[in-house]
Amino acid sequence: MDTAADITAMRRAITLAARGLGSTSPNPVVGCVITDAAGAVVGEGFHQRAGGPHAEVHALRAAGERARGGTAYVTLEPCDHTGRTGPCSQALLAAGISRVVYAVADPNPGAAGGGDTLRNAGVRAEQGLLADEAGAGNAAWLTSVRRGRPHVVWKYAATLDGRIAAADATSRWITSPEARADVHRLRAEADAVLVGSGTARTDDPQLAVRGIDGVTQPLRVVVDTNATAVKPGARVLDDTAPTLVAVADDAPAGHLPEAAVLRLPRAATGPGLDLEALLEALHTRGVRSVLLEGGPTLAGAFVAAGAVDKVVGYLAPVLLGAGPAALADAGISTISRALRLEVTETVRIGPDLRITAVPAPARKGN
Amino acid sequence: MDTAADITAMRRAITLAARGLGSTSPNPVVGCVITDAAGAVVGEGFHQRAGGPHAEVHALRAAGERARGGTAYVTLEPCDHTGRTGPCSQALLAAGISRVVYAVADPNPGAAGGGDTLRNAGVRAEQGLLADEAGAGNAAWLTSVRRGRPHVVWKYAATLDGRIAAADATSRWITSPEARADVHRLRAEADAVLVGSGTARTDDPQLAVRGIDGVTQPLRVVVDTNATAVKPGARVLDDTAPTLVAVADDAPAGHLPEAAVLRLPRAATGPGLDLEALLEALHTRGVRSVLLEGGPTLAGAFVAAGAVDKVVGYLAPVLLGAGPAALADAGISTISRALRLEVTETVRIGPDLRITAVPAPARKGN
Repeated sequence: MDTAADITAMRRAITLAARGLGSTSPNPVVGCVITDAAGAVVGEGFHQRAGGPHAEVHALRAAGERARGGTAYVTLEPCDHTGRTGPCSQALLAAGISRVVYAVADPNPGAAGGGDTLRNAGVRAEQGLLADEAGAGNAAWLTSVRRGRPHVVWKYAATLDGRIAAADATSRWITSPEARADVHRLRAEADAVLVGSGTARTDDPQLAVRGIDGVTQPLRVVVDTNATAVKPGARVLDDTAPTLVAVADDAPAGHLPEAAVLRLPRAATGPGLDLEALLEALHTRGVRSVLLEGGPTLAGAFVAAGAVDKVVGYLAPVLLGAGPAALADAGISTISRALRLEVTETVRIGPDLRITAVPAPARKGN
Repeated sequence: MDTAADITAMRRAITLAARGLGSTSPNPVVGCVITDAAGAVVGEGFHQRAGGPHAEVHALRAAGERARGGTAYVTLEPCDHTGRTGPCSQALLAAGISRVVYAVADPNPGAAGGGDTLRNAGVRAEQGLLADEAGAGNAAWLTSVRRGRPHVVWKYAATLDGRIAAADATSRWITSPEARADVHRLRAEADAVLVGSGTARTDDPQLAVRGIDGVTQPLRVVVDTNATAVKPGARVLDDTAPTLVAVADDAPAGHLPEAAVLRLPRAATGPGLDLEALLEALHTRGVRSVLLEGGPTLAGAFVAAGAVDKVVGYLAPVLLGAGPAALADAGISTISRALRLEVTETVRIGPDLRITAVPAPARKGN
């Protein structure tokens, strides 16, 4: 029986969890709120970084003795295993918590079972409150567990007529400073930022997060199949953050720092790399979320591979009438095979619009 | 001194005015609310069709004797001339109105002066309340008076990546039934609906308003420069509404109904017609507002000519990665020459987004 107080507490836990976005991988983000036996909030916490204490431990420490007989609200099922830290189910029992409300069951076979452990010890453990909201906040991690690959967000910035640059390839300031700052927030939440060889060649981007204090810089990844786009001295090779240049097995990459080279098979069809192998390699390295920043060719390949989990489009109220489109060949030649999405959010960012969409349910399994 | 009651009454007058959209041309839309000496609403009216009574006359009839000593709220300066109906300034004086609040001054030299006439007769006449809102509601007519050409709304429907059809030209149901119904509302508000030869050839559209009772069907206009797209028996030539097929002076148009042919000079540069001449010809026929429904080539020509006053884009959450873009060559080759707009509204229409934008102020004069 979930009361308004339960919902308030869980929503607060979801908000707390979001503070960990971008710094907990390969772990999920988790938030926890503890109330005492009378229902007053006595402790809050969130998982801050892999290897550090889990959210429950932070919250229990804050609550101290007041946790006894109280309720713990957790966005994810408390873990039941000893990893780099002890199992949270035991910590909750030791603190004398009498009720645990968690939003999402842990889909990870190695960590699940915390709910049962609590129930067997006589704690009222309830699952499912605000599960959709909490799941959305943990989309990257849940995707990575369920699919064995990182969650991929494709971000693009285009004019109202869908152009990412003018006919002469100029593209500066299509979107506003506000929109560009927002992209840095997206980068900060991702474990890795990914671009293709066209972008690397044209823009020589640094791909670092700027303007956000205390951020964990994401891994920078360039898909440079033939090892021709990233030159020695490229900004993406500076020491701001680690970098991987993904090249084909047979590409001559002697000009690149050895540690930065990720060798992968070429795609079975088409000109690029095997994207499944790329995502698997990133997953192995603990990358749970990827921000795909284009360009259109790479984005098209990801769409064709069914490997885009979320689309974030920044639309500038600008018309060009010529110039490259945001998305190139995705293997879709007729309208009935179009990738159908659902808009989940529309926000004004300065003069621009940010549109967020996810694959429509009927297609989610593809 | 405008009170909250003044604002409420004027906003109601603006709402009333909007009911005339699509049926008053070549006249403006006008709404009027009359309050008695104590401030109670005693009459309302709006201009319903050209040749019919003006808004003030409708409202005064409803108010009768209760108008004496009262206030008239009008969205546009009361006319001072005798057209097909007598001057509203005299009607207001005869009814004993003691105060007139109007939003927008009449920019039409032939009709202006009503405010002064009222003032000279001892009526308190005030101008400017909610002028922006009232002006927006009358944008078509105000544009036509100020520029001597119809107001042009460019409507398009595209995927998130800016495509209006797939690579094989299939395009059915890119946008939702809700969005398509909304387009019929736009058509109903326009005096004329305009398409190019590509659309006429590919879609054989009827271009009629469907699903809205009591609508005045807009004039249908096809720009068919070489008189090759509209065939005898085309749906656009049925008897639902009048139709003009705009062809070049030298095009062989013997296969088209004589009354439907509008001969115009070719554009000085490029492949189409002289758009200025087209708009002038429509203006001469009393067309004050045009809904430009594409396709991309014609829209590009309008953008290039600086003849788009408003953009209404229906964006479907769909990705294609290939297919024609919503806007073709508009003579813009570099980013600094892009047409910058301002988003004035974003609304969900079913699963789709409707984005409305107007040229940004700095560019308005171009």
